[in-house]
Amino acid sequence: MLRIDLNCDMGESFGAYKMGNDAEVLQYITSANIACGYHAGDPSVMRKTVKLALDNGTAIGAHPGFPDLEGFGRRNLNVSEEEAYDLTLYQIGALYGFVKAQGGSLQHVKPHGALYNAAAKNAKLADAIAKAVYDLDPELILFGLSGGELIRAGKHVGLQTASEVFADRTYQPDGTLTPRSQANALIEDDELAVSQVVRMVKDGIVRDVDGKDIGIEADTVCIHGDGKHALAFAEKINRRLREENIEMTNFMGQR
Amino acid sequence: MLRIDLNCDMGESFGAYKMGNDAEVLQYITSANIACGYHAGDPSVMRKTVKLALDNGTAIGAHPGFPDLEGFGRRNLNVSEEEAYDLTLYQIGALYGFVKAQGGSLQHVKPHGALYNAAAKNAKLADAIAKAVYDLDPELILFGLSGGELIRAGKHVGLQTASEVFADRTYQPDGTLTPRSQANALIEDDELAVSQVVRMVKDGIVRDVDGKDIGIEADTVCIHGDGKHALAFAEKINRRLREENIEMTNFMGQR
Amino acid sequence: MLRIDLNCDMGESFGAYKMGNDAEVLQYITSANIACGYHAGDPSVMRKTVKLALDNGTAIGAHPGFPDLEGFGRRNLNVSEEEAYDLTLYQIGALYGFVKAQGGSLQHVKPHGALYNAAAKNAKLADAIAKAVYDLDPELILFGLSGGELIRAGKHVGLQTASEVFADRTYQPDGTLTPRSQANALIEDDELAVSQVVRMVKDGIVRDVDGKDIGIEADTVCIHGDGKHALAFAEKINRRLREENIEMTNFMGQR
Amino acid sequence: MLRIDLNCDMGESFGAYKMGNDAEVLQYITSANIACGYHAGDPSVMRKTVKLALDNGTAIGAHPGFPDLEGFGRRNLNVSEEEAYDLTLYQIGALYGFVKAQGGSLQHVKPHGALYNAAAKNAKLADAIAKAVYDLDPELILFGLSGGELIRAGKHVGLQTASEVFADRTYQPDGTLTPRSQANALIEDDELAVSQVVRMVKDGIVRDVDGKDIGIEADTVCIHGDGKHALAFAEKINRRLREENIEMTNFMGQR
Repeated sequence: MLRIDLNCDMGESFGAYKMGNDAEVLQYITSANIACGYHAGDPSVMRKTVKLALDNGTAIGAHPGFPDLEGFGRRNLNVSEEEAYDLTLYQIGALYGFVKAQGGSLQHVKPHGALYNAAAKNAKLADAIAKAVYDLDPELILFGLSGGELIRAGKHVGLQTASEVFADRTYQPDGTLTPRSQANALIEDDELAVSQVVRMVKDGIVRDVDGKDIGIEADTVCIHGDGKHALAFAEKINRRLREENIEMTNFMGQR
Repeated sequence: MLRIDLNCDMGESFGAYKMGNDAEVLQYITSANIACGYHAGDPSVMRKTVKLALDNGTAIGAHPGFPDLEGFGRRNLNVSEEEAYDLTLYQIGALYGFVKAQGGSLQHVKPHGALYNAAAKNAKLADAIAKAVYDLDPELILFGLSGGELIRAGKHVGLQTASEVFADRTYQPDGTLTPRSQANALIEDDELAVSQVVRMVKDGIVRDVDGKDIGIEADTVCIHGDGKHALAFAEKINRRLREENIEMTNFMGQR
Repeated sequence: MLRIDLNCDMGESFGAYKMGNDAEVLQYITSANIACGYHAGDPSVMRKTVKLALDNGTAIGAHPGFPDLEGFGRRNLNVSEEEAYDLTLYQIGALYGFVKAQGGSLQHVKPHGALYNAAAKNAKLADAIAKAVYDLDPELILFGLSGGELIRAGKHVGLQTASEVFADRTYQPDGTLTPRSQANALIEDDELAVSQVVRMVKDGIVRDVDGKDIGIEADTVCIHGDGKHALAFAEKINRRLREENIEMTNFMGQR
Repeated sequence: MLRIDLNCDMGESFGAYKMGNDAEVLQYITSANIACGYHAGDPSVMRKTVKLALDNGTAIGAHPGFPDLEGFGRRNLNVSEEEAYDLTLYQIGALYGFVKAQGGSLQHVKPHGALYNAAAKNAKLADAIAKAVYDLDPELILFGLSGGELIRAGKHVGLQTASEVFADRTYQPDGTLTPRSQANALIEDDELAVSQVVRMVKDGIVRDVDGKDIGIEADTVCIHGDGKHALAFAEKINRRLREENIEMTNFMGQR
């Protein structure tokens, strides 16, 4: 039976500031990426989000980002490889504390925002992040952009990896995402987006912006959690995957 | 044979800012309290300080403080018990990551500065901190002011505790430290300070500011690491303890 | 003709996090307290909120708080008087830059949250804050709790002050606010709240929790901006003040 | 008579962390660039450094940087032009508060570290920074790398500018600095460094790394303040400039 993991960023509230619909979106996903206080989240939000995920039976991942609350981790910060290693390890450890204290276990690590993007392209940065994950716990699974440097780095260091694909983004002929700065970056039509996912999972193929089919590895799909439409889309993709007899499941049983 | 632990705060540099003489002071102590990034330290400093301690065979403890870099964790922040629990767990977890990644293990937790002082007096805050430590790992040892609320809270929750005494501070008749705001708070004479420690360890007694002997529990002595005099004093207290046949050792063997 | 100023905290969004309904609430108020980046707000939010207030003809005040984004400035931080002076001056200056750059002028300063509360009770802290305001610009108006230390300190240093009253809070026999921890702290009935304001403005009197009338000075009323009810209440109090022929106006004409 | 300004970064201590020798280096310079709390400095340090500069008769400039204390503002942060405008204005305003409160006036603005480097190369970023300076006060002088985009942007917006040169850095044939990553980036020999400055000031010429003379505009020279050698070098360059009858003076008299 075909299987796919659905992941979503959560725990992105901060202090008095609320963000996302964590409780609702948890119904539709199998893995939760929890912010670790650098780009979003705070210790209290982390504890509560870990509890929410554990109560829901959703697998937990650390979601480390650049130390940039004001920019929500979306602005690239030119860190050294050593700094990338250190900030990754710090944040995973911090989340690990809350998970262990509640009797859970950590499934995966997925970098956030600008750190995710940089790790998909910059081989040395990717190696540093992969090493931090491996050094903390070689059983952790590293999530990264399908075909990107982080997946390569994770495999190279000896980690299990999960290649991430996007439902609502278009792909270039070389398998990279069309940059958001381009007009055709997003797939606005929900049916098209859901069908793109089904095809990636069933056939390992995606149609690129030039209309040609290219191969793509899809272990996990990124679902957005913010806004009403996000929830409606999460429900749609869930329904369709069930109809297609594709099992939605995380990687906890495979570790 | 009598034994005592000598602990010192370290890893308090931050970014381009240097503080302390960690490498030198490590020669004289048996337990290192490593800052966790909230009042001092950063991920890179934490990794390097953990390495320094492990290379030196010194036991490692987490040194969580209030989120107040500008005030170096010395200004009281009126956090709720829940917030105290959360910020303690976050910081211990973050340090744990660096210790585990280097193959070491965490011995203890000692709160820093204003958090330490608040936890010595405020029972509910002390309970929250002790519970965070216990929930992360019930084998951790909780360091707190001898006779204070944190030691009580640690015992109550089921943790091993280490009662901390000070060489260079005077004691009130009720066993508390003379506040720094008072003229006679500090013992300036090194010989007096060293003798105070020896008596606390050998006889469980300290002479209070009124000249009366009072009982005191002494499991670990706080050594300062900043400044030239601190190093000279650390060397003096080491020499004297050896002369008195008091073994300087941490708690790793007892866990 | 009787007159009263209506003030509201705004510019409390931060990065990707939204808070408040600044554009809507501006219709009902005469003075805007704009957060300065320490407890809320960021440089971009400050610039946009200053523009919003200027476009609306609303007077602008700096709203400095403790450096505690995570706690939204609501947790007391035990700063020295010198630190209170410095953090107040820093934040007013930062906001002043945005106001001057847009051709506006700064009317007032109102401390936020825990800093406001501490300044109402702690005479030395109040003196430090008042001096910072005076040193930056002796024409600034200092907002503080009616009857509190900050008003006294402002007058003492030579500043014009504005005594602030609350529509939805009950008062103790000594003129202080009933602490929020007590059951009868809040006035839930909008009509009662509006009537309390009218009486404070017209007669300089408020009924305390024991049912006795006490004198109170009312130069400005604090309006809340968050939530739907806040907007409805702002509309109600506006309508009632108009009916009572009380002019709603800020202090710009009086400076 | 030939004239040159000597500037130095200062006020870079933070909380308990000390950096630099501000009091000593002030003897040798004519303009002080004071950190504004984003990459270094804090409100108390800013107040004290402003006082030190005013007492010494040294002109004061704001030294805004990226919001990155941990990286000391040396890591590039990919901000938008709008964000660059906002963070510059915020920091200048904050420092302005301390200067005005002490009866002084602000002479100039010089971006710090990675922001300085980005503004030398990125025209749009340079325009945003120049506009922030102009909007706050069109009389401010903008310091930037001689020949760089920031100088062009400052002139374009209508600001007086000061072209900055370096004593101890080598120059490329196109007038840019040799990147620090290259072996020949630094001039280690003090005599060579001093002579390079004299020639830049007297003849408007510098010898590039290929041994050819190229034109360079020199209004102000950057002096480093950290370390013993820095002070010795500052003293040397002062002596030599006096011998050459080059007046060391800031721009206060020219505004």
